[in-house]
This record gives sequence, structure tokens and C-alpha cells, in this order.
Amino acid sequence: MNAPQDPAPYLRDLLERFRELREGKVQSSLPGMDRTGPDTFAIAVATTDGQVWSAGDDRHPFSLQSISKPFLYGMALDQLGREAVHRKVAVEPTGEAFNSLTELEEDHLPYNPMINSGAIAISALLHHAAPRESQQRMMGMFGEYLGRAALVHDAVKGRELEGAHRNRAIAHLLRHFEVIGDDIDGAIRLYAWQCAVMLDTRELALMAATLANGGVQPVTGRCAIQRRHVRDVLTLMFTCGMYDTSGTWAYHVGLPAKSGVSGGVMAVVPGRMGLAVYSPRLDAHGHSVRGVEVFKAWAADWGLGVLGGGEHGDGSVHPVPDPAASAQAN
Amino acid sequence: MNAPQDPAPYLRDLLERFRELREGKVQSSLPGMDRTGPDTFAIAVATTDGQVWSAGDDRHPFSLQSISKPFLYGMALDQLGREAVHRKVAVEPTGEAFNSLTELEEDHLPYNPMINSGAIAISALLHHAAPRESQQRMMGMFGEYLGRAALVHDAVKGRELEGAHRNRAIAHLLRHFEVIGDDIDGAIRLYAWQCAVMLDTRELALMAATLANGGVQPVTGRCAIQRRHVRDVLTLMFTCGMYDTSGTWAYHVGLPAKSGVSGGVMAVVPGRMGLAVYSPRLDAHGHSVRGVEVFKAWAADWGLGVLGGGEHGDGSVHPVPDPAASAQAN
Amino acid sequence: MNAPQDPAPYLRDLLERFRELREGKVQSSLPGMDRTGPDTFAIAVATTDGQVWSAGDDRHPFSLQSISKPFLYGMALDQLGREAVHRKVAVEPTGEAFNSLTELEEDHLPYNPMINSGAIAISALLHHAAPRESQQRMMGMFGEYLGRAALVHDAVKGRELEGAHRNRAIAHLLRHFEVIGDDIDGAIRLYAWQCAVMLDTRELALMAATLANGGVQPVTGRCAIQRRHVRDVLTLMFTCGMYDTSGTWAYHVGLPAKSGVSGGVMAVVPGRMGLAVYSPRLDAHGHSVRGVEVFKAWAADWGLGVLGGGEHGDGSVHPVPDPAASAQAN
Amino acid sequence: MNAPQDPAPYLRDLLERFRELREGKVQSSLPGMDRTGPDTFAIAVATTDGQVWSAGDDRHPFSLQSISKPFLYGMALDQLGREAVHRKVAVEPTGEAFNSLTELEEDHLPYNPMINSGAIAISALLHHAAPRESQQRMMGMFGEYLGRAALVHDAVKGRELEGAHRNRAIAHLLRHFEVIGDDIDGAIRLYAWQCAVMLDTRELALMAATLANGGVQPVTGRCAIQRRHVRDVLTLMFTCGMYDTSGTWAYHVGLPAKSGVSGGVMAVVPGRMGLAVYSPRLDAHGHSVRGVEVFKAWAADWGLGVLGGGEHGDGSVHPVPDPAASAQAN
Repeated sequence: MNAPQDPAPYLRDLLERFRELREGKVQSSLPGMDRTGPDTFAIAVATTDGQVWSAGDDRHPFSLQSISKPFLYGMALDQLGREAVHRKVAVEPTGEAFNSLTELEEDHLPYNPMINSGAIAISALLHHAAPRESQQRMMGMFGEYLGRAALVHDAVKGRELEGAHRNRAIAHLLRHFEVIGDDIDGAIRLYAWQCAVMLDTRELALMAATLANGGVQPVTGRCAIQRRHVRDVLTLMFTCGMYDTSGTWAYHVGLPAKSGVSGGVMAVVPGRMGLAVYSPRLDAHGHSVRGVEVFKAWAADWGLGVLGGGEHGDGSVHPVPDPAASAQAN
Repeated sequence: MNAPQDPAPYLRDLLERFRELREGKVQSSLPGMDRTGPDTFAIAVATTDGQVWSAGDDRHPFSLQSISKPFLYGMALDQLGREAVHRKVAVEPTGEAFNSLTELEEDHLPYNPMINSGAIAISALLHHAAPRESQQRMMGMFGEYLGRAALVHDAVKGRELEGAHRNRAIAHLLRHFEVIGDDIDGAIRLYAWQCAVMLDTRELALMAATLANGGVQPVTGRCAIQRRHVRDVLTLMFTCGMYDTSGTWAYHVGLPAKSGVSGGVMAVVPGRMGLAVYSPRLDAHGHSVRGVEVFKAWAADWGLGVLGGGEHGDGSVHPVPDPAASAQAN
Repeated sequence: MNAPQDPAPYLRDLLERFRELREGKVQSSLPGMDRTGPDTFAIAVATTDGQVWSAGDDRHPFSLQSISKPFLYGMALDQLGREAVHRKVAVEPTGEAFNSLTELEEDHLPYNPMINSGAIAISALLHHAAPRESQQRMMGMFGEYLGRAALVHDAVKGRELEGAHRNRAIAHLLRHFEVIGDDIDGAIRLYAWQCAVMLDTRELALMAATLANGGVQPVTGRCAIQRRHVRDVLTLMFTCGMYDTSGTWAYHVGLPAKSGVSGGVMAVVPGRMGLAVYSPRLDAHGHSVRGVEVFKAWAADWGLGVLGGGEHGDGSVHPVPDPAASAQAN
Repeated sequence: MNAPQDPAPYLRDLLERFRELREGKVQSSLPGMDRTGPDTFAIAVATTDGQVWSAGDDRHPFSLQSISKPFLYGMALDQLGREAVHRKVAVEPTGEAFNSLTELEEDHLPYNPMINSGAIAISALLHHAAPRESQQRMMGMFGEYLGRAALVHDAVKGRELEGAHRNRAIAHLLRHFEVIGDDIDGAIRLYAWQCAVMLDTRELALMAATLANGGVQPVTGRCAIQRRHVRDVLTLMFTCGMYDTSGTWAYHVGLPAKSGVSGGVMAVVPGRMGLAVYSPRLDAHGHSVRGVEVFKAWAADWGLGVLGGGEHGDGSVHPVPDPAASAQAN
């Protein structure tokens, strides 16, 4: 089975297949989670031509949390350029997310922008570049992806700020190694804001579809990230987006993706669509339990995967298009 | 610039651009290396329709070494199935190739099939499945990729066997954790054979092109690996093929690849072609110095990369094809 | 309370106080353990003037296991000298006994002679120095400590040899780093023999008392180790003898000690006595559960501890004697 | 040779023997170090009966730096008791001072009080117990050891505070794991003060002699630390005082000791004397190069070492005294 013309029935079917999966624990320290049922469940797909289908609790709001990381990374590439960014953050997956408190490579750079240390370094870079308006610029960036004004959940942001001792530890280490500058508070504040941006599952699919569409938001037609930086964001999502299970995700799903502890997971099918699942029960790695299982089935059923068609698929090898041809296609 | 109709002038140009790069050290412990000039240099490309272009010392023979790993992994998938293989070997990149002597995850499985521990586990699986004919079967498999009888360099194999104390250490640990069975010698012997398979740069490009072509050798038209397992091999090459620089390689080149300490590097452009470089001076990670630099330029110039068009490219996002369409295309 | 004139009642009292402690697991893979009740329990003390007191199952035989390590280390010092030994083995405690499969320092030397890697290196040194008679010499050394011919338990030795994959892994790594020579089998065999030497708790106290007595066996008056090497053995027992709980042991007990997985623990009170406990249930670190608790109470009650008098003691600081005076005292 | 009646000629001799040792680097970031010649050199010994001998630049002032750690640990034992202290700090040496940024055990406690993480936890405990007067109390404690009012070097303290990003990182991690409370600034400030206490080499020998004397300052006869806690301080100095070379120090010198990056090293000969060396060039582990070499020779020449008489000594085993007898001796 490939992606159907009308995906709505398939999404409802996914919802049914995985509704009974009730393992995992909600991140109860997140404000508002007490009012979110642990079994809240939504699935959405948005195409690069701007159509959106969804099923379940698709208007239920949640905070971006770590799903914000690829977008901040893209914003840093746009504002500061590849070279300046990667002088401060490496691009290697870390095999040791659980043991490692510091998330730093041997040369003391953060492993990659998809983990906390890397995101803090990115936040410091962006804040340092525009100390007075870094928050406003960031909210503008998120607004372009969302196609509406971005909003932040005050209590989530506050909680992130007050309980940020692990992140402050990382920031001081980065300062110690001169990866970041003196304004640690500014960096931590920007980091807290990005985690607290609110959206629903349909909007998350649209954000992913914007990346699938070369940076152009499919509904508004406005540019959210420069076309030439999309590949870098997708590459880092592919190799590092699911923390220390990124290799397993690549093996089973094969799409650039990112998860957050609020329970959201998004994945990008380059050139075609953005996919999103929301379900707040998390596994030991901090990923939505249902999210991971839904994506495995989804990738297999629709034959997705940038290196070929899903695990139960037809085994087709996806040809990398000739750029000459693809330039037209795009 | 995209891939030209006649790539030969471009290959010669690459050779010129990187000829003066003379950093790195030849792995002088490999037999025969004393007779190989450290500046030997060859580049080749083979398309999925069976054309091969090359430049430089393109008939200079070298041993596969670690480039054999994805092929053995594919053979194990074909003979034993995904499930049996991955009960013994995980699919996660390791962030710590240099510190880690053991290359084992916390559950004591090898991190992935692209590092020594994983390849030893694969060898043990294959040897255990057919103790009397495992070598013969493996040589048959390599023969299908090469389009000719595979040959092994006796001295390279012998050297691998006699100096294999680190690999024997890994094998005993795997035995200790009951990942592999009792015939450690058999596994080590099979491992030594695979490292010693001889070929030249044109043939390496053809082996890569076989993977690009869904497992069908482009010249002979014979199947070297089942179509449905090619995606797994490419995925593991993408996430783990370049050891602890796999993330950097994905970022700069963006193609599934594998390198060996003899100096060869191959990369796969799915659906289109196989690329190979040979130059024996190695960097600190065990990759050909020129190989890495040539591939960075090559991917940028031809707009390659499974997640988009190379680092200086046009920034195009490669659409993942609709399987319905791609089924026809393939 | 200090050490009484007649310790027998105190030993019986210790037995009563800790008899009900039934936590921990017997190392059931050791041959013969099925015929040893998990609650077997013995305590003994031997003074440097050759008196021995004991209580409980004091004639119950068990194998030395890792308690053999300090004795082999002393034998290597006697036969090869400090310098030759410590070219191959370092003298640092390891903070990571559980994670570390390899037990090697960054320079690839074993951390110290009290862990498996170090003991294997010591065995290799001794075997290499006298390939034909290394076992005989070692049995002679143990005989001097025991005051009788040393005997080995065939099944324990055999089991050690057949199941020695972790040790063989370590040996191959040591060979890889050229810490040891080619005769890995000889080293592993000598290692297996030393673990299988049989004795009872009274004899273990006498072995400890021999170290307390400057190397002279208190009953036979014969020299088991050169006087000038005793301090090195005691120092390594103090800093490294209890694996990764050596610091905790030093804090609570404060005496040079060594434990083995058969359930024995010995400690040395320099110049005065050797202490031994046997009880086969082990904690997560591989120490006898009762052994550890008995020694904490014992050191406190008798005011032992080389740096002062036990944890509930009188807080006296033990003066390091003026060597002039101590030369007479000894 | 044992300790002579008049040690002065021996100290001058040590000075001559090691004067030409000019390896190592001064910690130039410490304020005032630019005015301290890199070859400043002093040696001192103080006995438990209050005599002090010295040679070289024995009145040259320097800051305590990490030598303050055992004294703060003792103060915490006195004020809060063993149990409260060790609920927050473990007592194990760390085998990995260089790799480990966090210095935390698997249960997230600092390894021991002799490293930064442990000293920060101790400072937090002391500050929390008396937020308004923690500094004053600490200065009082140092005053008792010194036999005069303790003074702090403002610039050293200021430098420690401003550049304390690594320590702040550790403090935030400790806060994250709920090892310490909210007043991170107070803990860091107390930590900075202790590092900046100023003294000379004769005074350092007297501080060590106070520990040798069961906590009673030999000149003033006043109690600087409770007698029953001295053993704990000495034990931790013995097993952990020289960071990741503590095992090597125990092997070569065999005395409880502590070093600081200003260039001071002190060692305790329990019951007899305190020894001190000052020379600011440091080795890669942060110890005074000359300090380490002087102490090796000194321990050998005088037959020191709590487990026996030094490495070239007479090999005597120091008897642990019978507490009954030692109670009189003390």
C-alpha cells in the first residue's frame, strides 16, 4: 500500500491499531500535563501542496519542547551561516545519551544541535547576535512555520527556567570551554522560550511539511528557512533527531524526525509531506511510545524512508533524483 | 553542475585537484603496502546501467578490509533474515570508536554491523550456519558483486589472522556474553578472509553500483543481494559506515558509504550509481585522506546527497518518490 | 574494647551477631558450591607469634579465587623485581569496575595487580620467566604461606579454564597492546591454577598473618615472601584490594584486605595479626556480605585500622613508629 | 637513614638534590603568580611536639587551593557528623579525573571530598548549616590550624569566583540531583574563600602536624578538629588526596597527603610529624613536580609510610600498635 489519495481513513485506522498501547509515563513535571489525559492521541499529515488530514485529538495543544531544536538550528544557519554555527556545535550522533551528563565531545563542543548541549549553544549564539530581540526574532521564525503568531505557555516556560539546573550546568561547562559567551541567563531564557511554544498536531505536521517543501510554508507560501539550509536540518534530524535511538529509528522508519517530551513526534518526507503524532506517554528514551510504533507502521505501509521503502514495503530503492530533473520537479 | 554525460573529464579534474594532498599515513602493516606507493590514487564511477568511468591508478589492486562489512551484513540478512541477525547486532552508531576497546552496547550487543565487533558477530553467525562452507559461500557472494571469481590475498589474510589479538579479544567477549557460539576460530578465519578480498577501484565502484541498483549487478544482471535487504545495508552504511565520523560524513557528503584501511572508500547514489576512490594515506579515523576530500567536492559538484543537493549545491530538496511512481521508474 | 587476650569468645560473638544476615547470592558456577550450604560461616584470627583462634565452620574448604592475587603479585616482585613488574601493571585503583570490560588504563596497562587484567599480566610475566615450572613454583609459594603442600581443586581449575572467555578477551587485549607475550594459554592456565588453590578459614588467617609478620610464616618460621616486598603487597591491598569499594573499605575498616568470589575475605593488621572470614553469599561487588559486615564491626571493636582506631573506636591516631625503634620491635 | 635529630641539614640537602628539576608549568592564572618566581622552593617539617625546621623560600606566601579540602571535610565532620556528610559525598577514589567533567558516581554523589565536586558539596552543607556565618566559622577553623588569624587573598578569591564556570557547572548538576540545596552562590563563595587562604611552607607543615597530632595544634595546644574525625580525614587523604595518582603516591610515598595548584603539597606522618613542600611548577595532574619527587626521596630516606618503610627503606613492616599501648603513647 502506498500513500492513498484520501489519507483520512488510514489515519483513523492507525489510531485504532495503537489506541490500546498504554505503556510509558507522562512527563508529569510539565505544567498542564495534569489536565492532559495520558491517552490523548492525534495523528496528522500535511502535504507540500498545503493539504492537511488528521485524526484523534488533533486540536489538543502541547508544547514543542525538544521538537524546537531543528527549527532553532535552521534559524542559526540562516542568521549566522554554516561556518559560524559549526565552529560551536559538531554534527556527530552521541552513542551515550544516558550516561553522559555533559553531552560534549572530546574537543568540548556539543555533539550536535539536536541535544540539549547543542541547543543551548545555538541559543547562546542567537542571543549573542541580537541580545535585545532574540526572543522576538525567534517567535517570528516560529510564526512563519505555523502560519500564525507563535505563542508561549507561561507556566511551561517558567517551569523550564526554574528547574533548569542540568541545563545551567551544561551552559557553565560550555562557558568554561569558551564555546559560549558570558550571557548564560540570556541563553537559558531563549532555550526556555523555544521549549514552551504551543501548537497542535495538525500544526506540527505543517511545520514538518514546511521542511519537506524546501522551507516554504505550504499554506502561506512564505519562506520560513532558506532553501539551502533545509538539507542540513534534515540531515541532522536523520542522524541525531531521536537521541541515542537515532540509528534504530533510521533502521525502522528511515525519515528525518524529532521528538519532544511533551509527547509529539514529527517526521519529514522530503518533497512530499510532513507527518506528526501526539501521545504523551514516553518510553525510557523520552520518545512517545505510540509515536514510535505508529511511525514504524506508517513508514512500512506507505513505503516511506529516504533510503528505500519501509521495512515491510516492496523493497524498492528510492533513486536519488538527477538534480537537473529535480530542479524542475521542485 | 550536475553529473555530466561523460564523467571522465570531471574524474581527471578531481584527480588533479587533490593530487597534492599528501597528508596521512599508510597502514604499513598490511602486506604488499610496501610495494604500493603512498600516492597511488584512483577514482571511478559505475552507473546502474553498467557504464564505468575511471581515472588514475584504476587497475591498482587493494584489499577490501572494512569495506567488506556491508556486504557480509547483506549476506547475513539474505541467509538468516533480519530478525536473526539483529538479535545479535544492534543498529546504533557509536560515538566513541576511539575510546571503546569493546565496541559493545550496554546490553553487550555490538553497536552495529559496520564496526569490528559487529562484523565478527556477523561472521560468527554465517560460519555457524554453514561451518564447512562458509568461506566458499562468502566468496560466491563477493563473486556476484564483482562479476568474476573473488580472490583472496594470502599474505593479507595470514597477517590478519596472526595479528588478530584485538579481534580475538572482542570475539571472546562476545562469547562471554553469549552473543556468539564456541567456534571463535571459525569466525575469526571468516573475518580474515573477507578483509583480504582483492579488487581495483573500478570494481569497487561496480560493487557500490550493485547496491544502487537494488542488488542487481549492473553488468551481469545477476542478483548479489535480495532487493528487500538493500535498504537495510544502505541505512547502516549511512548512519554507521564511517565509524565515529559518520555524522560528519552525512553532513558533508550525505551518501551511504564505507571505508577500509587499505585506502578505499565507496559511496552509493541510490538508483543511479556507485562511486569509489582509492588512496592509501589515512587520517586519524582510518579513512583515506584524499578519499574524504574528493567525496566532499564530488557530492557538492554533482548535487548528490540523499537528503538534498550537496553542500555548495543548489539547495534542492530531493523529493522522496511516490513508491507507485518509483516502482515504475525502477 | 581492644583485642582481648583470648579472642575465642569474641569470634563466637561475631558469629552470632551476623548469623542472621542472609542476603546475597552464592557464586553457583563454582564447582562444589552446590554441596556448600549458603550459610556456611567461619571466622579466624592468627597472630604473628603463631597462635590461631577460630569459630564456626572453620575447617570448611574453599578455593582462593581472587584472594590469590596479592600472593602472586608478591611472588612476581620476588622473582622479577619491582621495576619489571610495574612496567606491565600500574598501581592505581579503578573507579569503574562495573562498566569497564577491559580494566586497562589509558596507556593500556592494567590498573593494578588486584583486578583480573593485572593478575593475568602478572601470571603471564611469571609463566614467561619459567614456562616449564611456573605452576610448580607457584604451588611452592602457596605452600610456604600455608605451611603445607598446596593443593588445587581440579574441577574448579577446569571450570575456570573452560569458562574463561572474559579473561581470554583481556589476555588478547594485553597481547594486542604488547603488555604480555605470545603464550596466552600458559598465562590463562597459571591464572586458573591460582584461583583453585584450596584452604580453610584458619589457613587464610595464617596467610594474612604471614604478611602481617613481614613475610615470615608465623608457625613454620619460613620466609614466604621477601620482607622488602611486603609493604608493596599491603599497599596495593589497601588501595585496590576490594575492587571499586576499596575506598569504602578503607573508610570503614582501614586495613589492607582482599576478597574472592568463593566467599573468603582476609585482612592484615601489620605487625600483629591476620584476620579471615568465610561466608559464600556475595554482594553486588563480589564480596562476601557477612564478610564485609563482620570486618566493619571487628575493626571498630578492636580499634584496628592503619590510620587510626576503627569507626566507633577511641579515635586514637596510630603513630607511625620511628623505624629505629620499630627495627628493634620487629 | 631514619629521621635525624636535627633535620635541617637533610632539608637543605633535599633542596640541593631537586633544585635543578625545572619541568612543569606554573598555574599562571592564579593572581600573584607573576610575582612568584617559577623556581621558588621551600621544604619544612613540623613535629607533634611543636618543633619546626625548614629550608629554602620558607616564608614565601601562597594560597591553599585544593589543600583546603581535607580541612573543610574535617570541619563538616565536626559540625554535622559522619552520617550527614556521607549522605552527600562518597568515599571512593575516582580512576578518571581527566575525562570526567562531572566527578559524580553513578548514584550522582561526588566520588569523595578531595575533588572539586565533593568539596563543593561539603561547602554547600557547611553554608546551608549556617548561611550567615559560614565564612567566619571557616576562617576560625583555619585559624586554629595556623595558630594565628587566617587571611584570604582578595584577588585569588575574586579570580576563583569569576572564573568558576566549571565549578558552577558541577554545583548545578549537584543541585539537579538534589545533592545540594538552592544557595549555589553561597556554596561557590565559600569554596572560593577556602582556596584563597594564604600561608607559607612552615605553616603548611604545622597544619599537617596538627593532623598528625590527633587534631591538636602542636604549638598552641588548641584543638583544630575533633580527635575522632582525624582518622577519616587521613583515610580520605590517603586514598584520594592526590587525585588520579593517589595509588601511585600510596605506592611510592605511602603517607596521607594533599596537593594544590598553587604548588604546595603536605603529608602527614601519623603520631609524629607534618611535612610540606612548596614549588609552583606543576605536572599534568596538577601536582608540584618537585613536590612529588622530594616526597618520594624523603619517604624512602626516612623510612616513612604508614604500611612500611619507604621504597628504598629497610622493608620493615610498621606494626599497627595495640590501642591499649598507643593510648598511653599518645
